[in-house]
Amino acid sequence: MADSAATQEFDVLILGGGSAGYSAALRAIQLGYSVGLIEKEKLGGTCLHTGCIPTKAYLHAAELAENAREGAKYGINSSLQSIDMAGVRKYKEGIVAGKHKGLEGLLKMKKVNVITGNGRLVSQDSIDVDGTIYKGKNIILATGSESKTFGLEIGGRILTSTEALNMESVPKSAIVLGGGVIGVEFASVWNSFGVDVTIVEGLPSLVPNEDPAIIKVLERAFKKRGIKFNTGVFFEKVEQDANGVKVSLADGKVLEAEIVLVAVGRGPVTANLGYEEQGITIDRGFVITNERLHTGVGNIYAIGDIVPGVQLAHRGYQHGRFVAEEIAGLKPTIVEDINIPKVTFCEPEIASVGYSEPKAKEKFGADQIETTEYNLAGNGKSSILGTSGIIKMVRVKNGPIVGVHGIGGRIGEQIGEAQLIVNWEAFPEDVAQLIHAHPTQNESLGEAAMALAGAPLHG
Amino acid sequence: MADSAATQEFDVLILGGGSAGYSAALRAIQLGYSVGLIEKEKLGGTCLHTGCIPTKAYLHAAELAENAREGAKYGINSSLQSIDMAGVRKYKEGIVAGKHKGLEGLLKMKKVNVITGNGRLVSQDSIDVDGTIYKGKNIILATGSESKTFGLEIGGRILTSTEALNMESVPKSAIVLGGGVIGVEFASVWNSFGVDVTIVEGLPSLVPNEDPAIIKVLERAFKKRGIKFNTGVFFEKVEQDANGVKVSLADGKVLEAEIVLVAVGRGPVTANLGYEEQGITIDRGFVITNERLHTGVGNIYAIGDIVPGVQLAHRGYQHGRFVAEEIAGLKPTIVEDINIPKVTFCEPEIASVGYSEPKAKEKFGADQIETTEYNLAGNGKSSILGTSGIIKMVRVKNGPIVGVHGIGGRIGEQIGEAQLIVNWEAFPEDVAQLIHAHPTQNESLGEAAMALAGAPLHG
Repeated sequence: MADSAATQEFDVLILGGGSAGYSAALRAIQLGYSVGLIEKEKLGGTCLHTGCIPTKAYLHAAELAENAREGAKYGINSSLQSIDMAGVRKYKEGIVAGKHKGLEGLLKMKKVNVITGNGRLVSQDSIDVDGTIYKGKNIILATGSESKTFGLEIGGRILTSTEALNMESVPKSAIVLGGGVIGVEFASVWNSFGVDVTIVEGLPSLVPNEDPAIIKVLERAFKKRGIKFNTGVFFEKVEQDANGVKVSLADGKVLEAEIVLVAVGRGPVTANLGYEEQGITIDRGFVITNERLHTGVGNIYAIGDIVPGVQLAHRGYQHGRFVAEEIAGLKPTIVEDINIPKVTFCEPEIASVGYSEPKAKEKFGADQIETTEYNLAGNGKSSILGTSGIIKMVRVKNGPIVGVHGIGGRIGEQIGEAQLIVNWEAFPEDVAQLIHAHPTQNESLGEAAMALAGAPLHG
Repeated sequence: MADSAATQEFDVLILGGGSAGYSAALRAIQLGYSVGLIEKEKLGGTCLHTGCIPTKAYLHAAELAENAREGAKYGINSSLQSIDMAGVRKYKEGIVAGKHKGLEGLLKMKKVNVITGNGRLVSQDSIDVDGTIYKGKNIILATGSESKTFGLEIGGRILTSTEALNMESVPKSAIVLGGGVIGVEFASVWNSFGVDVTIVEGLPSLVPNEDPAIIKVLERAFKKRGIKFNTGVFFEKVEQDANGVKVSLADGKVLEAEIVLVAVGRGPVTANLGYEEQGITIDRGFVITNERLHTGVGNIYAIGDIVPGVQLAHRGYQHGRFVAEEIAGLKPTIVEDINIPKVTFCEPEIASVGYSEPKAKEKFGADQIETTEYNLAGNGKSSILGTSGIIKMVRVKNGPIVGVHGIGGRIGEQIGEAQLIVNWEAFPEDVAQLIHAHPTQNESLGEAAMALAGAPLHG
């Protein structure tokens, strides 16, 4: 690697080694390009180190805790003695370390030139990494996102998800600011670990981007689990002292707890990186691109969480591959954000792809939409698992299925079939004539499609 | 209901109220027909009462037992004191009773005329039920299957799956005759419950109908779990006395255990039901039909396990719907058996649809087939769940994916996307350009498709 002032040039130079950046790197290598991949911290980025992967490990530990507690319902004499937070962290860190090592090995094997350091765009084709200049015939910006804090000072009892993943003990109580994906996932874990949890969400409901039917089921389930929430109210002040935290809400209510998690969303990391100086358009911190992810400046592209839209690792992967193929002139297909599958891994899980009912009505006209809700109470495997929930399907009248939304234990894995249906614009009748395996939770998609096609299996 | 000798006539008269029969009944009602449904025992048949549903309840209890035992690996201080078989049965019976009640209610609400008793076909359009004659403009035979016993007398320590589901305690040891679906599922449950299990399978491997790569992973996993198996050897003799059972194998080996499960497959229930007398062709107990499930006699159709092919509840459902629509002249689409999804719910689970590699080579030519194996070691969610396994995908060169095969904990639910891919003859390239949600097990299908399309995401 270039360790002198001599300039090294790559076909593709990528700033940021998270999901979007490394996926671009691997695809560019496959396409025969030389690749430089600049990362200031750890390859794998937020998703691997402080996002998707570690939170899902905590959620699995939470599931195991619930199961051990509930064994007697199933004839299993099991018991839960305690949560060993050091053990949970060790398990989580084992998973992360394994994946990190695997990723490093893969990038090395594929001959991606990994450059460690702080990069800054200094011309339309060069990035300065701690004093060394690297040039790229094409440059891809993939600097990711970080927790928003709304001006709160993080430290002590005030945590973002990053700190929350490294706690050494289980708190007695927690306030979660934000009822979106991150907020409900942590609330779910902590409740399973025995923590008294209260969520504060400024919008009128938890997971406000989901279909109303899904929201209703989640809120009911959380209530049943003893997770408290204040929706439609913003917080005004967060104070901490040696004994705990105090959160004052706009309605005058004051909540107290041992800790507070700030989960009010993630903002793009684009400041002080030289983007604007090169003429790249920045809007509220996001990099503005055309629909093919080009910034409009030189051969500079932007991918992942710095591009406005849903902030998801798998969107980042796809952006990375897309831009590598775009550079190669392969004319890759654009996947619209609406057709990107989304999973929230709280208990019960939420999976959705395509239009919610209100958004479909807005898009296609209220009288052009038909929906069905299949209740998992009718699904054998869900009953066996002791879970409940729904599958909601949205179609255009005499047209394709444009939205699939599910909630229930383990329902996240149904997103695979759901996203094929929506992306391939299948009609309910197309799905209804196929056979879904019994007894699986997957049958619920078949049942919903059959109902929407006017010929329910069990009805 | 007809309780006198007066003959009652239905548009559709169905003999057998299992998955196939009741699904035909419900679809026929939807299509505006009057329906009589004859059942000698309980509505829902084998699947609901002694098959799919109760075994999956046992498998879930087994999973919970394993989890409680293994909690410390995940930081959860849990322990497994014992298996309370009375409790497991109660849980299982609760699920079955709930579904049974639901099914009875649904059939009543939809005005299906349920006729309880032993039916016998007595003419091309009539069935005698314990002395009362019912006529049908169309008749559907759906009498299902029962455990084969190869002449062994069931009783005492020699059980079929039906008896095994009603055991009052956990045996110390068990021999399982048959390494097919039922055999490996019971072996899996019992091993988790602490039973010393030995499987005997006459064919050269466990689950011999699966792709060789899947078989290899299963056998390795079972060995690791301490499940013993003798493959490629038939049993010759089974003896029991007050102390236990003794199974003599063809190779001279003698196995001893507390009980033996006879899981050597299921045979059609067609004897002494008047089928042959009406001119219906019976071959080794199965009813022979044309590809549209017509028997060639009058307006008589046959559906479900009595028709040669895979014996699966969801095939029965589809047969039932198919024939109802066929009667209505709707010209339903035939789903070939090869494209019916199959799941074996042992730990690790197996899911498959379409052609295995050997079968694909036979069908399309050895040089026309490409395959890929994606190892779940690369799949984040699988690592989090502590499971391993593979996804194997089989394509025709420059053509569609014709087989998807998976093994791993919880992998059964991936069958939904897999069966859409195979039934819709998707190319790997079609699947590869879509986005699979991270971090799910479902991503493994995306990774396999990308690899088969020549552009792996992580490679």
